[in-house]
Amino acid sequence: MQKLPRNKSNDYTPEMAAERRAVVNAETGAELTHVGSYSIDPGLLPGNIENFVGVAQVPLGFAGPMLVNGEHAQGEFYVPMATSEGTLVASYSRGMRLTREAGGIKTTVIDDAMQRAPVFIFEDARAALKFGRWVEDNFEAIKAKAEETTSSGKLRNIEQYAAAKMRWLRFNFTCGDAAGQNMVSKATRHACMWMLDQGIPGLENFSLAANFDTDKKHSFVNSLHTRGKRAVAEVTLPGELVKDIMHTTPQDLFRQRQYSNMGALMAGSVCNGAHFANGITAMFIACGQDVANVAESSAGIVYSEVTEQGDYYFAATIPSLVVATYGGGTGLPTQRECLDVLGCYGKGGVHKFAEIVAATVLCGELSLASAIVADEWVSSHDAYGRNRP
Amino acid sequence: MQKLPRNKSNDYTPEMAAERRAVVNAETGAELTHVGSYSIDPGLLPGNIENFVGVAQVPLGFAGPMLVNGEHAQGEFYVPMATSEGTLVASYSRGMRLTREAGGIKTTVIDDAMQRAPVFIFEDARAALKFGRWVEDNFEAIKAKAEETTSSGKLRNIEQYAAAKMRWLRFNFTCGDAAGQNMVSKATRHACMWMLDQGIPGLENFSLAANFDTDKKHSFVNSLHTRGKRAVAEVTLPGELVKDIMHTTPQDLFRQRQYSNMGALMAGSVCNGAHFANGITAMFIACGQDVANVAESSAGIVYSEVTEQGDYYFAATIPSLVVATYGGGTGLPTQRECLDVLGCYGKGGVHKFAEIVAATVLCGELSLASAIVADEWVSSHDAYGRNRP
Amino acid sequence: MQKLPRNKSNDYTPEMAAERRAVVNAETGAELTHVGSYSIDPGLLPGNIENFVGVAQVPLGFAGPMLVNGEHAQGEFYVPMATSEGTLVASYSRGMRLTREAGGIKTTVIDDAMQRAPVFIFEDARAALKFGRWVEDNFEAIKAKAEETTSSGKLRNIEQYAAAKMRWLRFNFTCGDAAGQNMVSKATRHACMWMLDQGIPGLENFSLAANFDTDKKHSFVNSLHTRGKRAVAEVTLPGELVKDIMHTTPQDLFRQRQYSNMGALMAGSVCNGAHFANGITAMFIACGQDVANVAESSAGIVYSEVTEQGDYYFAATIPSLVVATYGGGTGLPTQRECLDVLGCYGKGGVHKFAEIVAATVLCGELSLASAIVADEWVSSHDAYGRNRP
Amino acid sequence: MQKLPRNKSNDYTPEMAAERRAVVNAETGAELTHVGSYSIDPGLLPGNIENFVGVAQVPLGFAGPMLVNGEHAQGEFYVPMATSEGTLVASYSRGMRLTREAGGIKTTVIDDAMQRAPVFIFEDARAALKFGRWVEDNFEAIKAKAEETTSSGKLRNIEQYAAAKMRWLRFNFTCGDAAGQNMVSKATRHACMWMLDQGIPGLENFSLAANFDTDKKHSFVNSLHTRGKRAVAEVTLPGELVKDIMHTTPQDLFRQRQYSNMGALMAGSVCNGAHFANGITAMFIACGQDVANVAESSAGIVYSEVTEQGDYYFAATIPSLVVATYGGGTGLPTQRECLDVLGCYGKGGVHKFAEIVAATVLCGELSLASAIVADEWVSSHDAYGRNRP
Repeated sequence: MQKLPRNKSNDYTPEMAAERRAVVNAETGAELTHVGSYSIDPGLLPGNIENFVGVAQVPLGFAGPMLVNGEHAQGEFYVPMATSEGTLVASYSRGMRLTREAGGIKTTVIDDAMQRAPVFIFEDARAALKFGRWVEDNFEAIKAKAEETTSSGKLRNIEQYAAAKMRWLRFNFTCGDAAGQNMVSKATRHACMWMLDQGIPGLENFSLAANFDTDKKHSFVNSLHTRGKRAVAEVTLPGELVKDIMHTTPQDLFRQRQYSNMGALMAGSVCNGAHFANGITAMFIACGQDVANVAESSAGIVYSEVTEQGDYYFAATIPSLVVATYGGGTGLPTQRECLDVLGCYGKGGVHKFAEIVAATVLCGELSLASAIVADEWVSSHDAYGRNRP
Repeated sequence: MQKLPRNKSNDYTPEMAAERRAVVNAETGAELTHVGSYSIDPGLLPGNIENFVGVAQVPLGFAGPMLVNGEHAQGEFYVPMATSEGTLVASYSRGMRLTREAGGIKTTVIDDAMQRAPVFIFEDARAALKFGRWVEDNFEAIKAKAEETTSSGKLRNIEQYAAAKMRWLRFNFTCGDAAGQNMVSKATRHACMWMLDQGIPGLENFSLAANFDTDKKHSFVNSLHTRGKRAVAEVTLPGELVKDIMHTTPQDLFRQRQYSNMGALMAGSVCNGAHFANGITAMFIACGQDVANVAESSAGIVYSEVTEQGDYYFAATIPSLVVATYGGGTGLPTQRECLDVLGCYGKGGVHKFAEIVAATVLCGELSLASAIVADEWVSSHDAYGRNRP
Repeated sequence: MQKLPRNKSNDYTPEMAAERRAVVNAETGAELTHVGSYSIDPGLLPGNIENFVGVAQVPLGFAGPMLVNGEHAQGEFYVPMATSEGTLVASYSRGMRLTREAGGIKTTVIDDAMQRAPVFIFEDARAALKFGRWVEDNFEAIKAKAEETTSSGKLRNIEQYAAAKMRWLRFNFTCGDAAGQNMVSKATRHACMWMLDQGIPGLENFSLAANFDTDKKHSFVNSLHTRGKRAVAEVTLPGELVKDIMHTTPQDLFRQRQYSNMGALMAGSVCNGAHFANGITAMFIACGQDVANVAESSAGIVYSEVTEQGDYYFAATIPSLVVATYGGGTGLPTQRECLDVLGCYGKGGVHKFAEIVAATVLCGELSLASAIVADEWVSSHDAYGRNRP
Repeated sequence: MQKLPRNKSNDYTPEMAAERRAVVNAETGAELTHVGSYSIDPGLLPGNIENFVGVAQVPLGFAGPMLVNGEHAQGEFYVPMATSEGTLVASYSRGMRLTREAGGIKTTVIDDAMQRAPVFIFEDARAALKFGRWVEDNFEAIKAKAEETTSSGKLRNIEQYAAAKMRWLRFNFTCGDAAGQNMVSKATRHACMWMLDQGIPGLENFSLAANFDTDKKHSFVNSLHTRGKRAVAEVTLPGELVKDIMHTTPQDLFRQRQYSNMGALMAGSVCNGAHFANGITAMFIACGQDVANVAESSAGIVYSEVTEQGDYYFAATIPSLVVATYGGGTGLPTQRECLDVLGCYGKGGVHKFAEIVAATVLCGELSLASAIVADEWVSSHDAYGRNRP
């Protein structure tokens, strides 16, 4: 098969994009007309993709408005969602109407850290243990080294884990408004090189990354100890409102929640919620997030109570929400426009954005759970998703 | 805040899209120029999104060509990837060059099933047990009922799970070339309604879905018993080739794999691979998949060996790969073009597509692992991802 | 150090036991007077232990009587418990009083299977897949072979699992009144030898056991698919009774249960109950079970509801309860006496015994949860466990 | 059914024990002759059991001698094991011979902490977050309060975990030579009472224990963060020795280990070892440990390598080894004799004991893995366990 032009993978000119499309068309017969139709200036892209040929156009709609009483996000928001799943925007909008009429959603970012977790392998467990103590004793020096490589990243602490003759150091950074994976890789590597230079007694091997982080996959450690933001959204819904808008009751929703908790427990699910991933993914595509982080961001925890007054307290916690409002895909034109709609683009926006994501997830949970309980779920998919096979 | 026009959420005319953009612009001040720039015909969209305003333009590049020796995918393929992560396409391309020179990737779809898992709650465990036996005895009738609602879905079997007074029935369907979530929801609901009509002794409650499925979240059950396709990609790499292209050796890759296995075990990760999610997500966006299914599709299993000849056997298994080549977002113009590039659009394409995804994932695993071992990983991100903060 | 007499590890005479004690005493200075004081006839021991020197005397008490309305266990039972934990027997007895006054505990064994899970490794995933189909097609022949080695073991079915080029076959046997681990090992090995003799195309390797079973450790597969007995105990407690005996209310117990469910979820616990292990271990020691099976038997699932009448429905499910009333340690004198107290010794007793264990576990759960809610937990340990440091 | 004498559950006189046996005999017809045969002085028992009737006599043998090069355990040891499983002592002895000839086992206790983890429930996530910060700021005062209740327990640190409106505080204590569960319950309760007295803004509820600890059940948190001792045993076996004694090779053992790692991963096992539980349980019964702690102590991690010299490095890590050499059942006569054999009874012995347990576990792992690889496993069970059904 003909190769794409070598050594030009970072050439974003319309001519080169067209040449690549021509190669692919010649080899496969596929037209790339729509892929080649884009309004964005590829000159903005360097650093984002190689072998650029055009764009995937993903349908975008707005859900809401959604009322948020966050520490950072306050007021009403139209939430941009890019998806091809029918009923999704409508379903989230229904949850937003419900929570808006209930007085809005309280959101809080309760933790914030991005990690790189190198592993050090020693001649035996004792050498690994001694190294662990040395790291504790030299934290300030390690921190200083790590932070030499970044202006916005700050090394918060280093967790240590051990088995056999291995010791994992889980470096926790705060990263400003970037997601920070590259930032923490570079900083951690720099600090590790310095540590290696000091001479580590008994060291046999070292790897900068060996699955403990864990990036772009769910892990228990991430749910327990946070990766990215740990965001909570909470609402208390009057019973009457649940009846009027959702055609069910707090008691029935709560009973369904009990079954869902048991189902998740039995199935070994990483999320006892219904579909955190739907809202997160649609927002991630719309807003220029690294969508592969849906892998870990989609895990989460739902907790609910029927209050003594017969209202419904409902909370969604996202323990590993990897988001950014600066860097990566956030500067792409359509994505930046969507961040602008939320007032989140750029420096200072990331906690606000995390809160809006969490609030959106909560709305989707309430809407889907209500639809299942009221047996409106299959029929609504029929109504909205009507060209599904 | 001003509401979007009510009762018109399924109006896809340019005028209505513009009106919605105008509302959002008025309320937020955000320009939606690029979002409003699209070549696709919104008239094709019904069933895919509500409150349509335009598109997210996601940069698209081609990796490859990749050589696949599958049961369904055979030959060389350019792989469309939509992403904003720098180095990603380049990194996958490197893995594709490696595996191409090694003779290509063997791919096999070893299982195929889509689920809905209702729960039946009884007065006690004995009634639940009796119901379970009744379901076994009446499988053919249940199957006939379920299949009344679909021409392409076939009920393969029903797994049963139990705790306390609950019994979960995990309906396994094959769904042709659709992903099938809606199809199986409808079919399962129909079968359950019939079961309920028969009168189920001791039944207290029923829920069509309560987290056992588990849709759009990873679960152990899905990894164990497959959701969507269970796809395996395998390759054996000559040691010399690993040195030439990847600047490392089978022995060093294998040692890194041991550390990665331990890291994943310690961290409680749902994937002992490095970054299945990256390739899957980029292909899902490009090819019109339901991207929220990255949540479960990104989990997986890596296994490798150094052979007696000193070559490197490497396998990537994706146990819950939810894909479609028909229905949903697959018909959207840019997405369909990408499926056409792979020769996968429409009926008969889904196993081929699953094999290509698995092969792509394998290439990404080999490339990233080699970069880490050769300490080229941070530097390559610096070179390609240079506008990162 | 002096060795124990070689080649006589199975000599159970008092003289040889004394000689061994003398060796150990000479080497360590430790007296073994009490260890050497036993009433049991070591002539009964062959097959149970090597290098016999005497016994560990574990204090034994009776809890109860406990009222059980099982399918196999019916009526009141004194439950033998061997333990050194203060308050344990008293606490279980309290739960037994509560449930007795509530009309007794309903118990049901809802599944029964013991496993051995060999792994077959092939040249590639396709060969593994073909083998899987061959196994399905030849199940009856495999079953016949397996059952040649045992009179009481019956091969029920073979589950198949796959990743990379591996295929695990999970053989499920029913084993009469034995726990059956050795029985199924022998039968599975015999069947596998026959399969290997048939010539398996593409087979590279084989291992009779490689951690998929999983014996003497908890695994998700065991909780999901049962190992040993899957036993459920249920009770509905009148609210008044909860107040009178437990000094709390169904509502407070239910709230505590919600917190416990969240705690178990967050901690990644294999049991959302409070302390299944306590009752199971004490009964296992008393009744001659293989106590190492506490590893998997101690995992379990609690589910509860406050009924519309304000009563408390509570269920404990033990998904991997490995028990026997024949073979192994069940014939040891003190242990057999304890099984006799329950009327469970020998053939036909194992389901009855499983039900009694499940009922006992339920009593312990209710008692401890109530103590925590009523803040009587620490103080009761002070009162009863008073020689604790 | 006749009740056991009320209000006398702590009467340990021979007369009362006989009276209880008579009641049970009258009600069930079961003889309790052997149960009533004990040499131990029940006067020593107060605090250990209620409704004492006698003892379970569990057969006891010695494995070894085992050579240990620990930080605390140094030299050769006869290991007391109480079990009814045939071949167990013989199999461990074989591993001890192997490791002795290899120069002994290196052992290290790399962490030590016992927990109680209360949960505080607030009106919302923000109040929970503020409380978390208050706890950090007031650690010294909390520590002082906690330590008022114990002379040997020291509060090391408090980990915090959060979801929804809940905050779990995981109190980590060192407990000297006691296991410490009761000690930390009392100390944590005392500290929490003081915290509650200070007035906690927004607090809705509190529970001293709600499954986060997690006691007597395995949890991911315990494996990750240690409960009790985190003990590592390591050995490097010359290839020749493996051949001579185990009839296999480092390469074959390593290959089996790869399959076992995959099996454990697929099955979702909490232990990638073969049977940690066997050795731990037999030692726990013999040495007066709380045997129910087998639930968490049996989980663990195996890691191995074939060295460049062709030797076999093997390590067993027990992350949640709950052991004591003081308090609880350690003072019971036969159990104390067994601790004396190891030179571990009483103050100062617990780290030594933990090391011996870890070394024993390692020996059992090597022996069983070798037997499986050499296909001697089923046959050896036939030879030794010959009265098994």
